[in-house]
Amino acid sequence: MSDARFITVEGIEGAGKSSCLAVIEALIRRRGHDLLVTREPGGTPLGEELRALLLGHRADGMSDDAELLLMFAARAEHLYRRIEPALAAGQWVLCDRFTDATYAYQGYGRGIDLARIATLETWVQGGRKPDLTLLLDLPVEQGLSRAGKRSAPDRFEREQTAFFERVRAGYLALAERSPQRYRVIDASRPLEPVAEDIATTFATWLDGDAR
Amino acid sequence: MSDARFITVEGIEGAGKSSCLAVIEALIRRRGHDLLVTREPGGTPLGEELRALLLGHRADGMSDDAELLLMFAARAEHLYRRIEPALAAGQWVLCDRFTDATYAYQGYGRGIDLARIATLETWVQGGRKPDLTLLLDLPVEQGLSRAGKRSAPDRFEREQTAFFERVRAGYLALAERSPQRYRVIDASRPLEPVAEDIATTFATWLDGDAR
Repeated sequence: MSDARFITVEGIEGAGKSSCLAVIEALIRRRGHDLLVTREPGGTPLGEELRALLLGHRADGMSDDAELLLMFAARAEHLYRRIEPALAAGQWVLCDRFTDATYAYQGYGRGIDLARIATLETWVQGGRKPDLTLLLDLPVEQGLSRAGKRSAPDRFEREQTAFFERVRAGYLALAERSPQRYRVIDASRPLEPVAEDIATTFATWLDGDAR
Repeated sequence: MSDARFITVEGIEGAGKSSCLAVIEALIRRRGHDLLVTREPGGTPLGEELRALLLGHRADGMSDDAELLLMFAARAEHLYRRIEPALAAGQWVLCDRFTDATYAYQGYGRGIDLARIATLETWVQGGRKPDLTLLLDLPVEQGLSRAGKRSAPDRFEREQTAFFERVRAGYLALAERSPQRYRVIDASRPLEPVAEDIATTFATWLDGDAR
């Protein structure tokens, strides 16, 4: 069996996922592992087209069911074409958001039955889950204030504060339920201590992860 | 409760759905009913974009799971935005393909577990089913020969004969399972007798349909 690892990074808007991904990527490459860096929704030609629909639509909205099904359609394609073949070939995979985001945004955020999400997760993923999920946690107001300084908001970024409070609480609930897989990083601090924390957390996890 | 009816037309490639839809449309309008004519996948702005992805992709294919989920994403949107509001307002709905096509193509054709399709059907539709489904049945070879005389084949039309044999058999199995809702039309004949058959079948159904 390959020693490749599947690592995901999660967090609300403005949590600093891009910087975190860059830190993790450098750490993995420094250890000499071949690496696929990808994202959800997206990661395949079809997935990126679905991403554009998901983030762009809803001048007048999109039904919650449609949103959930599109997310998993993109994920099915992503797993089938990129993630599973990469892991099978011994390549590590670092993914910007994954199924935890569906639980947090569509489940906790929009109120879609978590059992439905779990059913789709099993259908599409079988037993595949990330080996490590880094959750960048910070107060919603702070995240939105950071995100607001960037470009025009996408369809999710235009949601209200109460929505993101539910998403954040959802992420924390998920982390509490899977402490083995999750590491929660306090992302309210400046980039430098966050990056140091990520590096330490990642190294500790790797050394302790004896599969 | 409104007396509006939800009518769908099904059949493999080259069965003559377009002509059949025109006949039914004329019959409904002649009776003075307000009518929405629509199609699947499609029927909404998002749905039509998904239709383009579904019919156009697969230079190198699309995973079966992704295809199934995209179909139901488009359907969720279609029901939510067009079909349910129309029926609620007393408008009749005539739809070129619906969930039976998912059973026939993705289920019987591609081999996706029919129980999965049934689960998605219940999630997305609740109890909503067509009141009448006209199945245009004809031998696969004849259908493909007719379809082949038209424009460039889409992603489904490029499938092999064995695939369409499974789809046709699937449609017939569905019709056998729901005789109350289904009417099977022998579409191997020339247009004129088929149109007459449709008109008679439709009138008989309407007069006998005492809800």
